[in-house]
Amino acid sequence: MEFSGKSVVVTGGAGFIGSHVVDALVSGGASVTIIDNFSTGYRELVPPRPQVTLIEGDLLDFPLVSGAMKGQDFVFHLAANADVKDGLLHPRKDVEQNIIATQNVLEGMRAHGVRRIAFSSTGALYGDAPILPTPEDCPFPIQTSLYGASKVAAEGLLTAYAFGYDFQTWIFRFVSLLGPRYSHGHIIDFWRQLRKDPKVLHVLGDGHQRKSYLNVADCVRGMLVAVKAAGTTNINIYNLGHTAMCEVNESIRIICGELGLSPEIRYGGGERGWIGDAPRILLDTKKLGSLGWSPTKAIPESIVETVRFIEQNPFLHKKQG
Amino acid sequence: MEFSGKSVVVTGGAGFIGSHVVDALVSGGASVTIIDNFSTGYRELVPPRPQVTLIEGDLLDFPLVSGAMKGQDFVFHLAANADVKDGLLHPRKDVEQNIIATQNVLEGMRAHGVRRIAFSSTGALYGDAPILPTPEDCPFPIQTSLYGASKVAAEGLLTAYAFGYDFQTWIFRFVSLLGPRYSHGHIIDFWRQLRKDPKVLHVLGDGHQRKSYLNVADCVRGMLVAVKAAGTTNINIYNLGHTAMCEVNESIRIICGELGLSPEIRYGGGERGWIGDAPRILLDTKKLGSLGWSPTKAIPESIVETVRFIEQNPFLHKKQG
Repeated sequence: MEFSGKSVVVTGGAGFIGSHVVDALVSGGASVTIIDNFSTGYRELVPPRPQVTLIEGDLLDFPLVSGAMKGQDFVFHLAANADVKDGLLHPRKDVEQNIIATQNVLEGMRAHGVRRIAFSSTGALYGDAPILPTPEDCPFPIQTSLYGASKVAAEGLLTAYAFGYDFQTWIFRFVSLLGPRYSHGHIIDFWRQLRKDPKVLHVLGDGHQRKSYLNVADCVRGMLVAVKAAGTTNINIYNLGHTAMCEVNESIRIICGELGLSPEIRYGGGERGWIGDAPRILLDTKKLGSLGWSPTKAIPESIVETVRFIEQNPFLHKKQG
Repeated sequence: MEFSGKSVVVTGGAGFIGSHVVDALVSGGASVTIIDNFSTGYRELVPPRPQVTLIEGDLLDFPLVSGAMKGQDFVFHLAANADVKDGLLHPRKDVEQNIIATQNVLEGMRAHGVRRIAFSSTGALYGDAPILPTPEDCPFPIQTSLYGASKVAAEGLLTAYAFGYDFQTWIFRFVSLLGPRYSHGHIIDFWRQLRKDPKVLHVLGDGHQRKSYLNVADCVRGMLVAVKAAGTTNINIYNLGHTAMCEVNESIRIICGELGLSPEIRYGGGERGWIGDAPRILLDTKKLGSLGWSPTKAIPESIVETVRFIEQNPFLHKKQG
């Protein structure tokens, strides 16, 4: 489908990925309604525009969510608890914010006859994947994190609604994203540490974790390619990642180079950064590739771009949530 | 592990499977605490016994669940919304009763240092499985029902708790069960219809659905075999089903033969009995088989046993829930 002239809801529209999706939709001629509770989003990312309506509210508030769905054509459901690492500190958060919130979105849509939804899932649901690069139909994975468990649950709700209520769904399993407006993850964690003490950098794990990262611009373009290509297929599941990986130590080298620092590196040890961390993440993106998509930005370039964006945007400097 | 002298919670202990598990545990020398809200359980299945404590309550009542976990050694979490077919009539029910209730059980356990749990999952989470018989590590399935989605979510919570909080977990993916105390499914649906009008039987789908069914005695024995064999392995996932399948039409022939009836059969049509129904279900049970387990009762024998139990137990005759 094309978004020109359409009404589109973007949950989490004030977040890293969501705000880029909003911009792309506005450029494409859509009217956009953002729902965001600003728990991890930023007002700086959603300047007032005539094509954009901002609803400040929580997806656990069902009447609010349902009311926002009236007259809409499409939903990008991107709001989530995206904090994988600290899931074990508050084990109900993933269930509430990623499962119950997703059902509220789906039920709000159903109440108002809205039936097309794109959803930000995660490569984390492959757990310790036995196959690298990991294809969408890899062996049934075992969930190693509450975050992964909550995303696999939300995916299941979407596809059950596709079967049962004739929804059309797009499920995107992302690797970690980088680029402008990035606000959560190892780069900003390292940046904060180095701003506080430029001489020492504490690193979770042994520094040898190797993962794929994708630039947010490539990610958003990939989602739009998949939505446009779907025709009437009602369940569309795509990995979204880079064909390359980057080791944490290489990432540190690039960040420190960009900041002109040479800190002592202190490793926490172990192959995982935290419980449930997968030491290797590489997704097979041939399926989206078959639609003509491929990443344009190399991972080191995205890391530099991310560090520069953080440096230049003080509103990101205080910790979220 | 052995259950003799242990304190064990059985959620759904007044239900079909749960009440058999309670009996097996009592026979094995355990003290059992049942939590059941009697929404689909029966008081007739839980006679007072000195080794059994009955807590009448709902798993959505967290203080009740948590209080029941104090001093326990093991939990069989079998309470669930087990109604696959009508999931679309009340789409929040599976999320509440199968996901949130499961997290309440896990959180109650965590609060009191209880870390061993066996869980009744389902072959329904394989959706339209591309491989028959379906092994535990088949290609990542797409959820076709809210029930399947809720069970895959609950499994993910269990394994995330195993990784994050050092729980030891057993996940059993059942086919449909038959045998004494059966109270929900196509046999009792057919039986009710035929008691009302012995001349006509309405059948969902085309009657050619072929599925594996397991006798509840074989199922309970299989669970206990797996629990005893686990050692310190903290994630134990097993299919539990029969190596044979039975077509719905064959099941009808056996039921009608047992009742001495020859009704006109009227088919609803289509290969699925309902939206999200899998026309073929056959699980690969080699993994549990490697521990020496195999089913002892043939499916036709279990169907006859089920019909006789229904006939002889009027408390089952009125519809549940």
